[in-house]
Amino acid sequence: MIERLCVVGVGLIGGSLARALRRAGMVGEVVGTSRREAHLRRARDLGVVDRYFLDPAEAARGADMIVVCTPMGAMEDVFRALHPGLDPGAALTDAGSVKQTVFRAARAAFGRIPPCLVPAHPIAGTEHSGVDASFASLFDGRRVIVTPGDEADPAAVDRVEAMWRAAGAETDRMEAARHDEILASVSHLPHLLAYVLVDLVAAGPGDCFRYAAGGFRDFSRIASSDPVMWRDICLENREAIAERLDAFGDRIGELAGMVRRGDGGALLERFARAKGVRDAYVEESERRARPADRPG
Amino acid sequence: MIERLCVVGVGLIGGSLARALRRAGMVGEVVGTSRREAHLRRARDLGVVDRYFLDPAEAARGADMIVVCTPMGAMEDVFRALHPGLDPGAALTDAGSVKQTVFRAARAAFGRIPPCLVPAHPIAGTEHSGVDASFASLFDGRRVIVTPGDEADPAAVDRVEAMWRAAGAETDRMEAARHDEILASVSHLPHLLAYVLVDLVAAGPGDCFRYAAGGFRDFSRIASSDPVMWRDICLENREAIAERLDAFGDRIGELAGMVRRGDGGALLERFARAKGVRDAYVEESERRARPADRPG
Repeated sequence: MIERLCVVGVGLIGGSLARALRRAGMVGEVVGTSRREAHLRRARDLGVVDRYFLDPAEAARGADMIVVCTPMGAMEDVFRALHPGLDPGAALTDAGSVKQTVFRAARAAFGRIPPCLVPAHPIAGTEHSGVDASFASLFDGRRVIVTPGDEADPAAVDRVEAMWRAAGAETDRMEAARHDEILASVSHLPHLLAYVLVDLVAAGPGDCFRYAAGGFRDFSRIASSDPVMWRDICLENREAIAERLDAFGDRIGELAGMVRRGDGGALLERFARAKGVRDAYVEESERRARPADRPG
Repeated sequence: MIERLCVVGVGLIGGSLARALRRAGMVGEVVGTSRREAHLRRARDLGVVDRYFLDPAEAARGADMIVVCTPMGAMEDVFRALHPGLDPGAALTDAGSVKQTVFRAARAAFGRIPPCLVPAHPIAGTEHSGVDASFASLFDGRRVIVTPGDEADPAAVDRVEAMWRAAGAETDRMEAARHDEILASVSHLPHLLAYVLVDLVAAGPGDCFRYAAGGFRDFSRIASSDPVMWRDICLENREAIAERLDAFGDRIGELAGMVRRGDGGALLERFARAKGVRDAYVEESERRARPADRPG
């Protein structure tokens, strides 16, 4: 049970977490803080937070769980601002997409990694932003990767994991660097590809979009994501992302060569291999989604 | 009204067209042909075709509308095989993804472009293949691009367009070369990116897929498409696709540079521009999808 939850940045993720914990009856009071009062007022009007403060330290005071859901670029400033209000018994966590950043920001703001810090990342979201887009079931059945450092207080780790499970998610633990490498591949790269694709199509003949089918629509959905968040992710997970972009560019170059040469055998082999992987992935996700339906 | 429709290749597209025309009461009899008898039997058992023939010429005989729905690579052979059965009054069309190919195949098979030939391309599909995946509403509200050559009989063009409208689609006319350039951008490129992405992620750490979220799932859906069809599209629309892959590769290189340099301003500008385009595209599609709901 969380007596007082402090959500810093009450948008899609922070708002959905508060809603999910209320749904679970796992939270006493929810306090919000943000740089924008209009957002906070809206969150209170929607019943997502009970009270709000513009000063993060005031919001944090008396909270036993503090979750930072701001863009990655604001993390260090947020930590500095929270510092005076942090209770000794509080657990401090976040929902950012790059986990090494959280340690860098904490070291800069606190002068060390505080034992209460347990970075985490819910693998969930939509292309919409803001508290109006938040909903209680966002994390149901999704994974949350928790990346405690060596300094972390085991009790704080347990409490953060328990919170996410109460919100409907499954939790996994791993090192921050490994998280950042995996996410560069399965999340950061696809988002950047979607931005590049939309931008490239927009630069083409005027009415191209008129002829876009479902594949393009699905593919480009994530290009509607928040640009500031994605800029920050690129800046924070720079090396892993640049490496993935290079690897992708190399493969695109290879493929262009196969197409130019008319190497049907190589193209078929690539496409068939990718289809096999994708079909297996979908089958596995579906199996996981409804274990009770399946015999054996 | 089509008295006798001949569908060559009764899979997702051919099967859905037959179903849609039956739904509209626009077709007397549906005759199927394919190289695989098992597929034809299945199509007959499902009521998608009334009769079938293994010989395309026999299937075409007496048909007033012949629609070729085979992979692009089979088009020339199919035209040759249909030739002896073509009635003088029949319209001959197809549903292939590359339109210049249809003219090349027709010239090779018939020695000229027959006036009955009206190539067309429904911008619709799913990642599934085969007649079991076909359904009557596949083309509802979708666009079909019709690319008649200068030789085309205007009556045949009208009949092909009327057929697609009866199947629920809207039709547009343009030149084959323009079609192929637009589709390279909005359809062929995204499919290839999906294949490359899935293949790249599969080559990474073993459990990457475990952490893939909705963005990846949407993005990679089209990687489950038929590899033979996509090999053929690559071979048939070679230049336009290679050009788009090069352009995409260049932009990926630029983006990798921005990420490495930590050029937040340039990244934000790119992402915001793409989001603007994508949001406008979605708004426009939604406006088109429900015109009656909107004032003005």
